[in-house]
Amino acid sequence: MFISFEGTEGVGKTTLIRKIHQHFEEHGKQVVLTREPGGTPLAEQIRSMLLAVNHDENMSHDTELLLIYAARAQHLQQVILPALEANKIVLSDRFTDASFAYQCSGRGLSQDKLQLLNQNFVSRMPEVTFWLDAPIELGMNRARERGALDRFEQEKLSFFTKVREGYETLWKAEPERIKRIDATQSPDQVFEQALQYLG
Amino acid sequence: MFISFEGTEGVGKTTLIRKIHQHFEEHGKQVVLTREPGGTPLAEQIRSMLLAVNHDENMSHDTELLLIYAARAQHLQQVILPALEANKIVLSDRFTDASFAYQCSGRGLSQDKLQLLNQNFVSRMPEVTFWLDAPIELGMNRARERGALDRFEQEKLSFFTKVREGYETLWKAEPERIKRIDATQSPDQVFEQALQYLG
Repeated sequence: MFISFEGTEGVGKTTLIRKIHQHFEEHGKQVVLTREPGGTPLAEQIRSMLLAVNHDENMSHDTELLLIYAARAQHLQQVILPALEANKIVLSDRFTDASFAYQCSGRGLSQDKLQLLNQNFVSRMPEVTFWLDAPIELGMNRARERGALDRFEQEKLSFFTKVREGYETLWKAEPERIKRIDATQSPDQVFEQALQYLG
Repeated sequence: MFISFEGTEGVGKTTLIRKIHQHFEEHGKQVVLTREPGGTPLAEQIRSMLLAVNHDENMSHDTELLLIYAARAQHLQQVILPALEANKIVLSDRFTDASFAYQCSGRGLSQDKLQLLNQNFVSRMPEVTFWLDAPIELGMNRARERGALDRFEQEKLSFFTKVREGYETLWKAEPERIKRIDATQSPDQVFEQALQYLG
């Protein structure tokens, strides 16, 4: 089983992933915990490029999208597909939905570009995706408390509002796969709701 | 005018580019000399990842292709398009043909993937492309003399034979744009032939 976790900054993805990880391990399952962009040493190198704040050179939106898919291709081949093949549960902090929300809805890149990257370079989608949804301001405050902001976290409120709308669009289009969870609840309530969906 | 230079390792691209650069400057033209993958600090970072020999993690073919197009998107937006806009001549050591020759013909990646990346992420093609063609062994010996081999240069003879065949396929398909030059000639002869094509 392949489960992804989505949402804007500071909505509590890490906490939920940790709880679900622990839950599965207590039930004797083998779990692979991973994240995007990243998940392999090479893909983490790409992540560093994506998050770095660079005042000398603006990264073009196309470059950002293609770097994310380069990291994703590596992550799929090296980590996700082999783990699923070995009957392990894969928990990934973000996957393709994040590209729709951040790059298409947030940055305004065409959905056609994303769609053809998904069709040609993504051979496996998650069975379940948890979208942790909370008011943008709440998450941004939490992100700020964690320390220096990366290139994405430095974006304005209006950007994250569009990202959130992107997630909402996806959730409405794919309610079977994408489960919305109210992330203003306590971490335990969020976890309980996720468990219900995993049934 | 946008001119690209193509060919397998050690065929003398750098020497020809230097001579053409000098020629245009002597005629009072403004010239931008650049290369792929690379051409901007960020794209050069991607180049380093592509060329690095990594014994711990194999780079997937999809990842390689997407990294090359991430670098290309950045190169186009930051260097090539602004230079052409300012009426400068752009001389690029490699461009999209290299992706066909190395990734499709050499690695065996599908041409469909390449085509859709070209269609969606490459808004400008060179007017002229010089393909420096020489027997593979000759170029490989020259590359070896230059020092430690990068991830591509370490490939086997059979790989470069396929890369050369890829260039040949492109040349036959687009004889108007792609000019084949016999790279076993002297550097001066190669330069003279290129000049004739530039008319």
